[in-house]
Amino acid sequence: MASSSSLTLSQAILSRPSIPRHGSSPQLHSASIPSFSGLKSVSSSAAAAASLSRRRAAAVVRHPVIASAAVETLEKTTDTELVEKSVNTIRFLSIDAVEKANSGHPGLPMGCAPMGHILYDEVMRYNPKNPYWFNRDRFVLSAGHGCMLQYALLHLAGYDSVQEDDLKNFRQWESRTPGHPENFETPGVEVTTGPLGQGIANAVGLALAEKHLAARYNKPDNEIVDHYTYVILGDGCQMEGISNEAASLAGHWGLGKLIAFYDDNHISIDGDTEIAFTESVDTRFEGLGWHIIWVKNGNTGYDEIRAAIKEAKSVTDKPTLIKVTTTIGFGSPNKANSYSVHGSALGAKEVEATRQNLGWPYEPFHVPEDVKSHWSRHTPEGAAFEAEWNAKFAEYEKKYPEESAELKSIITGALPAGWEKALPTYTPESPADATRNLSQTNLNALAKVLPGLIGGSADLASSNMTLLKMFGDFQKNTPEERNVRFGVREHGMGAICNGIALHSPGFIPYCATFFVFTDYMRASMRISALSEAGVIYVMTHDSIGLGEDGPTHQPIEHLASFRAMPNILMFRPADGNETAGAYKVAVLNRKRPSVLALSRQKLPQLPGTSIEGVEKGGYTISDNSSGNKPDVILIGTGSELEIAAKAADELRKEAKAVRVVSFVSWELFDDQSAEYKESVLPAAVTARVSIEAGSTFGWGKIVGSSGKAIGIDRFGASAPAGKIYKEFGITAEAVVAAAKELI
Amino acid sequence: MASSSSLTLSQAILSRPSIPRHGSSPQLHSASIPSFSGLKSVSSSAAAAASLSRRRAAAVVRHPVIASAAVETLEKTTDTELVEKSVNTIRFLSIDAVEKANSGHPGLPMGCAPMGHILYDEVMRYNPKNPYWFNRDRFVLSAGHGCMLQYALLHLAGYDSVQEDDLKNFRQWESRTPGHPENFETPGVEVTTGPLGQGIANAVGLALAEKHLAARYNKPDNEIVDHYTYVILGDGCQMEGISNEAASLAGHWGLGKLIAFYDDNHISIDGDTEIAFTESVDTRFEGLGWHIIWVKNGNTGYDEIRAAIKEAKSVTDKPTLIKVTTTIGFGSPNKANSYSVHGSALGAKEVEATRQNLGWPYEPFHVPEDVKSHWSRHTPEGAAFEAEWNAKFAEYEKKYPEESAELKSIITGALPAGWEKALPTYTPESPADATRNLSQTNLNALAKVLPGLIGGSADLASSNMTLLKMFGDFQKNTPEERNVRFGVREHGMGAICNGIALHSPGFIPYCATFFVFTDYMRASMRISALSEAGVIYVMTHDSIGLGEDGPTHQPIEHLASFRAMPNILMFRPADGNETAGAYKVAVLNRKRPSVLALSRQKLPQLPGTSIEGVEKGGYTISDNSSGNKPDVILIGTGSELEIAAKAADELRKEAKAVRVVSFVSWELFDDQSAEYKESVLPAAVTARVSIEAGSTFGWGKIVGSSGKAIGIDRFGASAPAGKIYKEFGITAEAVVAAAKELI
Repeated sequence: MASSSSLTLSQAILSRPSIPRHGSSPQLHSASIPSFSGLKSVSSSAAAAASLSRRRAAAVVRHPVIASAAVETLEKTTDTELVEKSVNTIRFLSIDAVEKANSGHPGLPMGCAPMGHILYDEVMRYNPKNPYWFNRDRFVLSAGHGCMLQYALLHLAGYDSVQEDDLKNFRQWESRTPGHPENFETPGVEVTTGPLGQGIANAVGLALAEKHLAARYNKPDNEIVDHYTYVILGDGCQMEGISNEAASLAGHWGLGKLIAFYDDNHISIDGDTEIAFTESVDTRFEGLGWHIIWVKNGNTGYDEIRAAIKEAKSVTDKPTLIKVTTTIGFGSPNKANSYSVHGSALGAKEVEATRQNLGWPYEPFHVPEDVKSHWSRHTPEGAAFEAEWNAKFAEYEKKYPEESAELKSIITGALPAGWEKALPTYTPESPADATRNLSQTNLNALAKVLPGLIGGSADLASSNMTLLKMFGDFQKNTPEERNVRFGVREHGMGAICNGIALHSPGFIPYCATFFVFTDYMRASMRISALSEAGVIYVMTHDSIGLGEDGPTHQPIEHLASFRAMPNILMFRPADGNETAGAYKVAVLNRKRPSVLALSRQKLPQLPGTSIEGVEKGGYTISDNSSGNKPDVILIGTGSELEIAAKAADELRKEAKAVRVVSFVSWELFDDQSAEYKESVLPAAVTARVSIEAGSTFGWGKIVGSSGKAIGIDRFGASAPAGKIYKEFGITAEAVVAAAKELI
Repeated sequence: MASSSSLTLSQAILSRPSIPRHGSSPQLHSASIPSFSGLKSVSSSAAAAASLSRRRAAAVVRHPVIASAAVETLEKTTDTELVEKSVNTIRFLSIDAVEKANSGHPGLPMGCAPMGHILYDEVMRYNPKNPYWFNRDRFVLSAGHGCMLQYALLHLAGYDSVQEDDLKNFRQWESRTPGHPENFETPGVEVTTGPLGQGIANAVGLALAEKHLAARYNKPDNEIVDHYTYVILGDGCQMEGISNEAASLAGHWGLGKLIAFYDDNHISIDGDTEIAFTESVDTRFEGLGWHIIWVKNGNTGYDEIRAAIKEAKSVTDKPTLIKVTTTIGFGSPNKANSYSVHGSALGAKEVEATRQNLGWPYEPFHVPEDVKSHWSRHTPEGAAFEAEWNAKFAEYEKKYPEESAELKSIITGALPAGWEKALPTYTPESPADATRNLSQTNLNALAKVLPGLIGGSADLASSNMTLLKMFGDFQKNTPEERNVRFGVREHGMGAICNGIALHSPGFIPYCATFFVFTDYMRASMRISALSEAGVIYVMTHDSIGLGEDGPTHQPIEHLASFRAMPNILMFRPADGNETAGAYKVAVLNRKRPSVLALSRQKLPQLPGTSIEGVEKGGYTISDNSSGNKPDVILIGTGSELEIAAKAADELRKEAKAVRVVSFVSWELFDDQSAEYKESVLPAAVTARVSIEAGSTFGWGKIVGSSGKAIGIDRFGASAPAGKIYKEFGITAEAVVAAAKELI
């Protein structure tokens, strides 16, 4: 553990190395990198905030009832009039922002403002000036289109990321209040939502992370990990299959600190949910092993909501679904309870009518003084929460130095020094092996040195080779273990891993299935890439080389489809060294997910491959030419690099000068200097042949107009792998023939 | 309706135009095109089989009990000893085929043989010599890895597609018994399964199709549409989110003739389902509105299974889930009830032990004579079913000529003559409009002339513009209507549409969501392409042009990802004529699904666009050069074709010879002759600039090494569309600048 213990954890988190952000125009995002000015003020005001009890006393003077409610959670509550006013503030901030942008979704914030208020004002523990404080309660707005709810709450709670100007710039270029919640734009937003169902699955990942860390690190005298995960999800989330997958796992794992509010408003975009959604959600969740509570009046039933949360917290062995029946667009006299308030501005006339109806005399974006004052306590209170926890951590560190070092690595994301020495290396004499097996060797080697490595497979552990042998299964009663059994739920798996990755920077979640089934989880993988969640996707059975299972199981277009996706690293390693190289890069890239396409079939350890080569994405593994002027360049990836090497042997027998290039990661090669690229693929050498057991789509750019791309532009077939390779012409003979045509 | 009524429907189906099959090696598939020799024998033996009652009487003599069970369904049953023997035949055919291939999944067939036997021998109505007989009961093996169960049943039932040699060639090159069930390889297989959860969703589509057609065409005196849909699904299917989506819709729609067998064997690949799947499936399905029956002894409880089916049929307003508790690998003394029997050959020793255990003295692949004889009645019986139905249809045709013409179009796939005249055309003077709106014009025009057009949106009908105004909603009590409300369930939607498409060749299902959410349904879309289901995917909000919703909603890599997928047509029309052209090609391609990427924003009607142009995939819309030698070629798609045209105007002002090419469908352009391609993109003209608001991945091949591809290789952003276009450099100025650099 490199970071010194005198550094506070919240400072340490800031010191983690900055990794280039996704996209080709990083400057566009510069506004979104958190400045953490708030954190500094926390640190400097540490003396004032150090003692929670002292601050509590002060708070009692100012808001006698509220403070105790906030601290003791739900025992008492503030006066209803002020709550109502705060709730209406949330409603109107949302209405006003959508109105100004003339774009957005006012309906959900208007309906969910009461539960939002109670969560952020009375229930949740967070520090607005350090949105990354480790032990904060997590909140996920799974119904991400209602993001103005969250922005209004972050604004009231005192987060620097959402100032009044940010609200006024809702959905505008470079604002910190984009059209859906984006963790990489807005500190205080935990995950990126909008695509429905992702958020509830992320929340399952967040709650898993908490349960796991608590089991691993908590001591009878020091429960250093202890927070809740709250979600609001809507009818749309409930309809998506991913939410059922994730909810089934949450029930199976008994994630008692996951509390989900189901905004039961009976309206979706197409109108009343009666037209497509008449199932009994309660009964389904009962079947999934959740505790269910129904709040019948989510519009004004504050005490009902409070009581539900209290009950949910008392059920510690099951996640809780609080079905909160609300009115979408509550308060709008003509649009409430209709789809017209879901996704469009109310319009000036209806805004006015709503102001009248709810008795709201204020200017747009105005926060009444008493509401402002009421919420202002969250800044000192949050600082005190963190200070108290820091003190607790200091004690923990003294008493449990080994555990605290590990936990700190997970909290800060600082990798243990020398971790990469654990990676295996190979020589051409090492036995041939499938890259899926070599992957397992890597995973097991890394598990010993990376405390945050955790993951598993979608019911294919023995095929994907993903079991960590030194650990048992993460289960309801053994949550300290690290092998996660996801069942056949790829989509949920990906989103859960996003949640784990974004819980703490030192988590390195991996997940696995057959490469072709990335199609089941592509929406989650895209959000890994977008939200900078460094998940490692271990994708085996990466081509027709899987053989008999046939075209439903044989990826063809998948390599191309990920190479086209921004901010994701697509690896297709050829052997042991390249598999180790892929893991090295994947582990280092904590803000860019990696996909490893791995073979089912055995592959030889090739001369010339290296971890260093993989780090450059494309590199020469053998060359008998001189002066950077080969007669022909043969380019292969993964299992076909061997074929390229064999073809080179044949051509060299005929005195040709042949270079063999491994193109293991196109993205990494793209990142290299022009000079390096020219040293591998000199512009003057247009005789280029690529071979890859997948779609040739995209290879045109690599081999150029004069080159030839050998691949598979049809679906696969069911037969033994060798037979398919031969019939599809993925052979050294084909490469030799193509090369001869070009030379 | 072109086909004469003297042609039988089963013949008519054979006469539908042959459309090139997917993939670059169509000959590889030739073995799978049904020969229908069986059908001819049906026709020629029509006299013998014409009278069902006469045949029944004959059957009674041969198998007194069986025949009545088959005809009257479940009233009586054959003697248990013979059933047992038949069941063991199924088990050993499966064991032997997997053993010979040394690859495959014996466990499911061994456990599900009893329900399989009862379905195919006692319950289902089908004609083995015409697998495409319209009114057959449909069977879907959602747990597709257990395909040997289905192959064994098709073999016993007398399907020509699965002969003894086919069983012996299980999982071999060009066999009709591939590693998972593939409808395009094996007549008798309805849909393509293997990727888990797809099959149950396909089955929902098949059952929807039946319910819809029955409501539209059945008369009190002639119920011409009347069949069941049966499914076997396993634990894996149950865990997948797609199955929950589809099951929720099945319950909502009250698909009473959908009967699903849940093979509850408690084993998945990773071992006991206890490790990842402890939910109560019964309770969940109760919540989804299904009728639930539990068969506790699926291994030998034949009467229990029969009674369950009888009960399921008696419940007509709900689909039924029959949970059948079985032992995976039943009969294998050492491997039953373990994952080791799931996906590998038993091995010679265990095969021998299983033979001993089940008392099976026969050679591999042997079907005992009494079993063979028992099953042999299905050929005449099936012919009689069809003949009886043909007679019924002849009556229907006489009495209801209009309805029968429509129904026949749906059954045969013959499109009504002149249908394409319904497509709208536009001139540059026509008002600017979003292609999503133009798509709605097309859909509504086509709905009037295409009786098989049916579809809807995943809760975005008013955004995707997919409502057919002349029809109401397909619902439980209005199943004759054609607007399907899928709810927010993209994945289930795609698979349900696959089921509809494969129910009858004349169905033209369409479905819609935002283009970015193809990520949620990609697995189903791939199966559309693989299984030759001509679904039309109406995908709106196709770029950053959607604006404020931001990067979670803005497709970037999606065009490239579908261009890389085999056998799917990716369209990005630029205006009204191109949208109409895309629909024309999509409707004609009944074995190749189409994806239409459509704009949210208004686009002008461009001079030079045409339906005919779209049919060629890429074509020149304007050109001021001569001799096929422009100074520069500007290539655009969709909303960026307008930008290319504007840039051309600018360049032409400076006396440049500029060609503007619309590249609306890369796949169609690929299919053109070399001569045509040269006429559009002459090899000598290397100054080429492409512009598309999406990933540049793949464009390298089109613009060549000297050309320039303008696009977006990062994620999008939340802001008004115009602002994003400008900031991202998707502008006419950028095209002009790039062109000038190249000229």
